[in-house]
Amino acid sequence: MKKALAFDIGGTKIYYTVIDENGNVVGEINKNSTPQTLDGIKDIIKKGISDNPDVDVIAFATAGAVNNENTRVISSTGNLPAGYRDIDFQGLSDKKVFVENDANAAAWAEYKIGSSKGCPNAVMLTLGTGVGGGIILNGKLFKGKSGAAGEMHFKMYPDKRRQCTCGAYDCFEAYASGTGLKLTAEELSGNSQITTYDVIDGVKVGCPEMTKIFNVWQNHITQGIIGLANIFDPDCFVLSGSMAQFVDVQKIEEEVNAEIVTTPTKVKRGSAGNYSGMIGAALLALED
Amino acid sequence: MKKALAFDIGGTKIYYTVIDENGNVVGEINKNSTPQTLDGIKDIIKKGISDNPDVDVIAFATAGAVNNENTRVISSTGNLPAGYRDIDFQGLSDKKVFVENDANAAAWAEYKIGSSKGCPNAVMLTLGTGVGGGIILNGKLFKGKSGAAGEMHFKMYPDKRRQCTCGAYDCFEAYASGTGLKLTAEELSGNSQITTYDVIDGVKVGCPEMTKIFNVWQNHITQGIIGLANIFDPDCFVLSGSMAQFVDVQKIEEEVNAEIVTTPTKVKRGSAGNYSGMIGAALLALED
Repeated sequence: MKKALAFDIGGTKIYYTVIDENGNVVGEINKNSTPQTLDGIKDIIKKGISDNPDVDVIAFATAGAVNNENTRVISSTGNLPAGYRDIDFQGLSDKKVFVENDANAAAWAEYKIGSSKGCPNAVMLTLGTGVGGGIILNGKLFKGKSGAAGEMHFKMYPDKRRQCTCGAYDCFEAYASGTGLKLTAEELSGNSQITTYDVIDGVKVGCPEMTKIFNVWQNHITQGIIGLANIFDPDCFVLSGSMAQFVDVQKIEEEVNAEIVTTPTKVKRGSAGNYSGMIGAALLALED
Repeated sequence: MKKALAFDIGGTKIYYTVIDENGNVVGEINKNSTPQTLDGIKDIIKKGISDNPDVDVIAFATAGAVNNENTRVISSTGNLPAGYRDIDFQGLSDKKVFVENDANAAAWAEYKIGSSKGCPNAVMLTLGTGVGGGIILNGKLFKGKSGAAGEMHFKMYPDKRRQCTCGAYDCFEAYASGTGLKLTAEELSGNSQITTYDVIDGVKVGCPEMTKIFNVWQNHITQGIIGLANIFDPDCFVLSGSMAQFVDVQKIEEEVNAEIVTTPTKVKRGSAGNYSGMIGAALLALED
């Protein structure tokens, strides 16, 4: 059975492991903090490659948009060192190298072995510190003209209220992310020290104020999904990432289907796990 | 050269003509008011078919979402008589019959012979009484799981301000359409009798109040396009429909490209003309 050495390169951690063509993790998970220098990142990659000679391809799931040729990063990646986008990934190995955006790779993992299996039109939203997006259309990963499609920076308001990490205002990410929950909590409570944990813990013990804040946040997610459902008419949505465990997917699904003008869709929690980026990149690399 | 008899069936008018495989209108344009009964509509279709025996296929551009088999309407079509969605189009002719949503068909015409020619990823927005949408991805019309994709009912606000014709609140259509312009004008002027013409005429003579209203409306369009550009990373947007002549496509393009996190896109006015629905349906039918 063919195997890939798969890396997940994010702003805080770099993971790598070996994954087979069924999407099973068959190696140890090697975890590193992301170095602050380009050479530090390259050294981790080189060590991973030299320690795993018995693989067929090298797969990267990375922060940042990746070109349609799956060879390099084309967008800025704020949390990674300067120059990261210019890394020549293929130059690091004699084997075939395949690069994909981490959210796109995770969406592919959900489609091949996770919650959206059997859904040829599936939109994945990764609800974490930010919001990632990966879109499967007609059974293929949708990348757009340059590879950057699936950025969930559509507007929640048209009139400049809350700045997003992208520099623009009122993107879905600025409301539906964990950071968005904190900002909503700050606005509604007047307390600049409030945390997402305060809200989540408050909901668990039935605090009315925290529940109200949580519901405003969850409604932002619902309203965004309604728009995406009308645009894409997808078989399903998959919610993953660290914040997905807290949302009520059944309630969101019901509210979405009550409003959309397209046909009913499903809203599911992701099931491909924390290594879905590496799994998806590995599967894409092995199929390519 | 192959030819199609093409119909455009809308809530107020039914047009038909003959179109060749290059997208040229080669017959007279036959215009009818839309009858209030299903039989009335069928009679117009039957007359068109019997008067044009010398064609290869019959193409319909119709209001309402059309299934992925291009045989029938699958959504409600408010301005057409009850039962319209159950019409068996193929049963009306012995020749091959092909049905497509009017906005989708128009988007295809723009892609094949109009403004988005050479743009394999193109989003068309028809700005009229409402807002229609047609999406070309990787050189193919994107239809979603059931055929209903491309509905421009994503949210401008998450908190229920203005009801849309679809029943939900604050859809892009409710702000970016001609109707949306009137509602924005009503809100900002406090005058419930104000019309879109008042605004457009006021802008032409330099009225500051009307210009301010117009700019709010145009900003709604810009904000919507920013979101779609980040989601689709398209080569271009095409604005068509009766309201498109009034917008400043260059200004919109500049504002969109200044904000998006994907790569620069283009915003163009449609050029396939008033018969683009019939032309697109004919080209799709002849290629099918």
